[in-house]
Amino acid sequence: MTTLAPETAAPARTPRRGPGRPRNEDIDAQVLAAVLELIDDKEEVTAARIVSRSGVSRAALYRRWPSLTTLVAAALDVGRYVPPPIPTDGNLRDAIMEAILGTPLEGDNAGYPEERFRQRIRLAMADRTLQKAYWASHVSRRRAPIVDALRAGIERGGFRAGLDPEACFDLIAGVFYYQLVVRGERMDEPQTMERCRAAVDVAWRGMAAEQ
Amino acid sequence: MTTLAPETAAPARTPRRGPGRPRNEDIDAQVLAAVLELIDDKEEVTAARIVSRSGVSRAALYRRWPSLTTLVAAALDVGRYVPPPIPTDGNLRDAIMEAILGTPLEGDNAGYPEERFRQRIRLAMADRTLQKAYWASHVSRRRAPIVDALRAGIERGGFRAGLDPEACFDLIAGVFYYQLVVRGERMDEPQTMERCRAAVDVAWRGMAAEQ
Repeated sequence: MTTLAPETAAPARTPRRGPGRPRNEDIDAQVLAAVLELIDDKEEVTAARIVSRSGVSRAALYRRWPSLTTLVAAALDVGRYVPPPIPTDGNLRDAIMEAILGTPLEGDNAGYPEERFRQRIRLAMADRTLQKAYWASHVSRRRAPIVDALRAGIERGGFRAGLDPEACFDLIAGVFYYQLVVRGERMDEPQTMERCRAAVDVAWRGMAAEQ
Repeated sequence: MTTLAPETAAPARTPRRGPGRPRNEDIDAQVLAAVLELIDDKEEVTAARIVSRSGVSRAALYRRWPSLTTLVAAALDVGRYVPPPIPTDGNLRDAIMEAILGTPLEGDNAGYPEERFRQRIRLAMADRTLQKAYWASHVSRRRAPIVDALRAGIERGGFRAGLDPEACFDLIAGVFYYQLVVRGERMDEPQTMERCRAAVDVAWRGMAAEQ
């Protein structure tokens, strides 16, 4: 799962937009849906299978994604979103919980089923290149608004001086991953959420500025 | 990967110890080594393959492990150990760091290679039954001495009253898992350890009793 390199170079084509030609976004969506189908079916993701499932040509794939790894990373992120910048005068704690869980805490997380999360971790552990690509292109972008808000809180004095906002984010996010990856719990179990809230409370107190 | 059920019931055999017959511990070690070889080679773990690699009979497997899941869980724990009870007057923080990292912080972690950790997570994410079995039979036992020490600290007043020691352990352990599972970092990278120490420091302050 490294490159999408064709056996022979793809012929250069001038994109042409005819009346029946699907728009670019439609093609992207078709391809991403095909990749997710393969992942959800626990099939190995290959360029040939994507072409076959999506009906999109190999050449069109090459024009859109530089490698199979970046395409798989993009597919794994479908249904997840980058939270907007966090107003630092709002409830930062709730915003962090929400950003980590990917949807409002009251939501049913339907946009990102747990089984896909498990598949994502499985693929990442099998392929560090994919893991690093997904981190660089997706996870780190999704963290940024929260890390920025933590940094602002440290600079403005709500949190202790000298805190590392990246380490604080890892601490808080880590307790959620621990539930899913080590304990094998579901986030909709009340006692799991209760444990996470108790842990975030500890982290929050540890971050707070001394009075 | 659920049961080790034979196609036909294994014939009852009276274990007999002849002069050349290997001791039980040797047989266990042979089987566990064979399972680890399969895992390290990224081959599917089946009873037939274990029999073939280990030279141990299918019947002998059945006598030792009730299911393939429990056998795989046992194999994944080879090289890891349950820390001894933690003296609560010692440096609890260092003891926790050491227990989480599995070896002294100065060690090279040779007893449990990172690639096996990645394979373990991969197998757990592919099979929740294995994940839960490994949690119940191994992870929860390895946590116990630390969780007990945290509980003692809460009862004796070193930590805040009302803390959940399980949630505190999850918080601290989670930041290490986050490095390995999400960031794709190696624990021997100085900046990774630095980030973990900074995060544990935050957790520790959050747990500390108010003066």
